[in-house]
Amino acid sequence: MPKDSYLVGLIGSGIGPSLTPALHEREADRQGLRYLYRLIDLDVLGAAPEAVGELLRAARDLGFDGLNITHPCKQLVLGHLDALAPGAEALGAVNTVVFEDDGRAVGHNTDATGFAASFARGLPDAPLERIVQLGAGGAGAAVAHATLTLGAGRVTVVDALPERAAALADALTRHFGPGRAAPAAPGDLPGLLARADGIVHATPTGMAAHPGLPLPAALLHPGLWVAEVVYRPLETELLRTARALGCATLDGGGMAVFQAVDAFRLFTGREPDGTAMLADFHELTGAVTAPR
Amino acid sequence: MPKDSYLVGLIGSGIGPSLTPALHEREADRQGLRYLYRLIDLDVLGAAPEAVGELLRAARDLGFDGLNITHPCKQLVLGHLDALAPGAEALGAVNTVVFEDDGRAVGHNTDATGFAASFARGLPDAPLERIVQLGAGGAGAAVAHATLTLGAGRVTVVDALPERAAALADALTRHFGPGRAAPAAPGDLPGLLARADGIVHATPTGMAAHPGLPLPAALLHPGLWVAEVVYRPLETELLRTARALGCATLDGGGMAVFQAVDAFRLFTGREPDGTAMLADFHELTGAVTAPR
Repeated sequence: MPKDSYLVGLIGSGIGPSLTPALHEREADRQGLRYLYRLIDLDVLGAAPEAVGELLRAARDLGFDGLNITHPCKQLVLGHLDALAPGAEALGAVNTVVFEDDGRAVGHNTDATGFAASFARGLPDAPLERIVQLGAGGAGAAVAHATLTLGAGRVTVVDALPERAAALADALTRHFGPGRAAPAAPGDLPGLLARADGIVHATPTGMAAHPGLPLPAALLHPGLWVAEVVYRPLETELLRTARALGCATLDGGGMAVFQAVDAFRLFTGREPDGTAMLADFHELTGAVTAPR
Repeated sequence: MPKDSYLVGLIGSGIGPSLTPALHEREADRQGLRYLYRLIDLDVLGAAPEAVGELLRAARDLGFDGLNITHPCKQLVLGHLDALAPGAEALGAVNTVVFEDDGRAVGHNTDATGFAASFARGLPDAPLERIVQLGAGGAGAAVAHATLTLGAGRVTVVDALPERAAALADALTRHFGPGRAAPAAPGDLPGLLARADGIVHATPTGMAAHPGLPLPAALLHPGLWVAEVVYRPLETELLRTARALGCATLDGGGMAVFQAVDAFRLFTGREPDGTAMLADFHELTGAVTAPR
């Protein structure tokens, strides 16, 4: 018997402005489901990130069907799960926990699948032979997994911290095979970008609190596509600059929406309407048209 | 700004068959509210009744707006609350906890107010001078508070355990004044019922697991009204016998419904439709017409 009601939530820090509750609840309303999405904000609770395990157990006991997990708990939660889906295991990070009917807590990662879905939809014809990725943090790991899963020939990971770029490139090579990933330093960007097909941007630069460009504008050229992870604001300085040059671009909204699409599917076993959820996102963020 | 969504639940033991979730959710649907009512069953969790405090704190942290509390936690929960409404304080028992906006957990008792509402609706013209009440347990305390609040002249509490009858009568006298309550033994019933206006039945006898009559049938007479607390089944042997004699009767369904009506009002601040909730109850229990 399919369930007729769903209780889910998001554990993380500073999540008050998240649009994810509205995205899930609007889709559930379209499907006629009783569905409640609660924010469980560590800052509001005055709880340490390590409380994620206790919160997880409590949520299961109190009848939650699943949880999204965000910063700073995506790795911390790993020790409190009964099983990991292959993608989450490869990434070493979980943003979605499903409480199965038998009570087991199973971890998934829809950041990676969400970025892949957004990319396939927004830049369907983009060449993937040589990708330069800026940023080797948690978001960087997820989007590198996504582009390599989509068939990228080689992802070169650039990070201001050389050991972080090396560690991610190492992990990607182990998972996807020799030659599929390599580390590089910001000083290598001129040569890399001259020969690249596109850029994936996965650093915080361009967010409201970190304005600016993540690389010198002079390195951009019309032969590159540019995919952005930042979605607050939707139009970052990087995207604005790239569009002005004529680059094909992908904003960060699609990843935000499709991580929710994929989580909704995991929570409910029902197929969400991604197009409608993307339209909801643009309405909620006040964007007049869906930017490309 | 009024909230637009509500998350509530019930903590207790063996609560799987409870109709309260459906009563709340159907009323919320009529009012256009997003509303989810979860069962938190100690038996399912393998948790001790003493876990109620921890579950309460977890529920507040995870975004619950309130909880109903039932057996065996109605007294145990008292030590975990920040404040008590006067009725709950007088009774020493809580069946409803509201998490206020400031995070305080406030205890209420809608068993008493629910029985009072059901009684006023179902037996509006019943004389209240001399009431004989069978049962001095938790339900007995709630319904005695209800009838005395409605203006009963005197409630005589009969229980197989003399000390329990005495303790409840004592507590009632302290709260409602001298002469309003007295204890008695089952052997006193013939004399008491010959002069009584009505009987309130508040023992488990008549439930599916405890079939039978809670007193000798010969003591019933058409001059008595009979109010029942048991509601599974709705038609107990006591009610059937009393109706056959021509007694005015009140089944236990009304108390079950109006405790939910009052809890819904406390959780949401909105006025529920008691008539519609009573009709839902009869539909859910399969009763064809509302029995009187």
